[in-house]
Amino acid sequence: MSEENKSGIPLPTIRRLPLYASILFNARDGKQTTISSSYIAKELGLEPIQVRKDLAGIGITGQPRIGFPVVELIEAIEKFLGWDNTSDAFIVGAGNLGAALAGYPGFKKHGLNVVALFDCDYSKIGSKIHDKEVFDIERMGHLTERLGVSIGILAVPAEVAQAITNLMVDAGIKAIWNFTPTKLLVPNGIIVERVDLAASLAVLSSKLTAAIKGKKSN
Amino acid sequence: MSEENKSGIPLPTIRRLPLYASILFNARDGKQTTISSSYIAKELGLEPIQVRKDLAGIGITGQPRIGFPVVELIEAIEKFLGWDNTSDAFIVGAGNLGAALAGYPGFKKHGLNVVALFDCDYSKIGSKIHDKEVFDIERMGHLTERLGVSIGILAVPAEVAQAITNLMVDAGIKAIWNFTPTKLLVPNGIIVERVDLAASLAVLSSKLTAAIKGKKSN
Repeated sequence: MSEENKSGIPLPTIRRLPLYASILFNARDGKQTTISSSYIAKELGLEPIQVRKDLAGIGITGQPRIGFPVVELIEAIEKFLGWDNTSDAFIVGAGNLGAALAGYPGFKKHGLNVVALFDCDYSKIGSKIHDKEVFDIERMGHLTERLGVSIGILAVPAEVAQAITNLMVDAGIKAIWNFTPTKLLVPNGIIVERVDLAASLAVLSSKLTAAIKGKKSN
Repeated sequence: MSEENKSGIPLPTIRRLPLYASILFNARDGKQTTISSSYIAKELGLEPIQVRKDLAGIGITGQPRIGFPVVELIEAIEKFLGWDNTSDAFIVGAGNLGAALAGYPGFKKHGLNVVALFDCDYSKIGSKIHDKEVFDIERMGHLTERLGVSIGILAVPAEVAQAITNLMVDAGIKAIWNFTPTKLLVPNGIIVERVDLAASLAVLSSKLTAAIKGKKSN
């Protein structure tokens, strides 16, 4: 199966949109009104044609020798990614990772609002973490329906990830943001996105290796 | 500044290598000996030329109408990313996030070995988290040198991220894996890589938006 969205825009394009946004925010802060695809491409180590294709996909085309309009492009990306309005989400698993995510300050900016946590540990149920209540996981179905929540953030130990995913699907969760290293099996129509720490770690290690080699050859 | 590595390989290429690896592992499990760039490109929503360029960058070229050798390609990626040997790392910040990362089972597979944690909270110093000792942050310089550790995983609250980064640099840490949303300022030669939750969340939200629209139009 190709990794393509129903919107017709490939997922790697969508993954790149926040990177484009961060370059555009810098350009806007620097009072720049236009930006070239080759500049963006160079900053991100991409081919300029890839950048132009990505931006055309969300409906913005540049003008030859002038480039792309910075503010329009920011607005188009924010709209496309839903950063202009927020979605409610549950965190499932109130252990260390769940608690860390409940207090993560960056989510609101990117359109995510954590409303509650779930756990099966009675010593946690009823307590509050970062002002959000921890509910019994048995109540997830009821609360998913009553609060109209679609997104579940999975933050449980790897070995129970699949079992808890099944509970989330039964509860009516439509999209699972998977913070475990487990590859989840879900019915058709349920969305899963796994946080990929491997890619980030790969960049760190290779930069470090290159730096050490660079020093040795000096 | 272009996002390019000293090895001459662009960072987005390096970021894609773990994705290529996961497709290649599946191919190997299915007893496939060769794989085409267009297949890989389709799976990841990339242009085939981008895939061929990326793989040529780590020294592997395919043969027309035959494709790329699966096992050779896996070995080249593992070697390039250092997955074939491990690096020691410290976690700085023994709060919820630090504790979650100390117990994360996926790091070893990707060449990272967490040896200890640091904190400034006396109620945590001396305790063990997932069998790893929590040390006083004042001892970081001494232990970085004694144990020859280069990598520090930053897992502190956003508002102290820069101050703790300064301490890590003074202690001799060469590469910082930043789990905070703070953009860090570091001296030349110090490597920083931030975990980008925004890209992952962007994919999740856009899939969900597309799924909801798809349902409404049915």
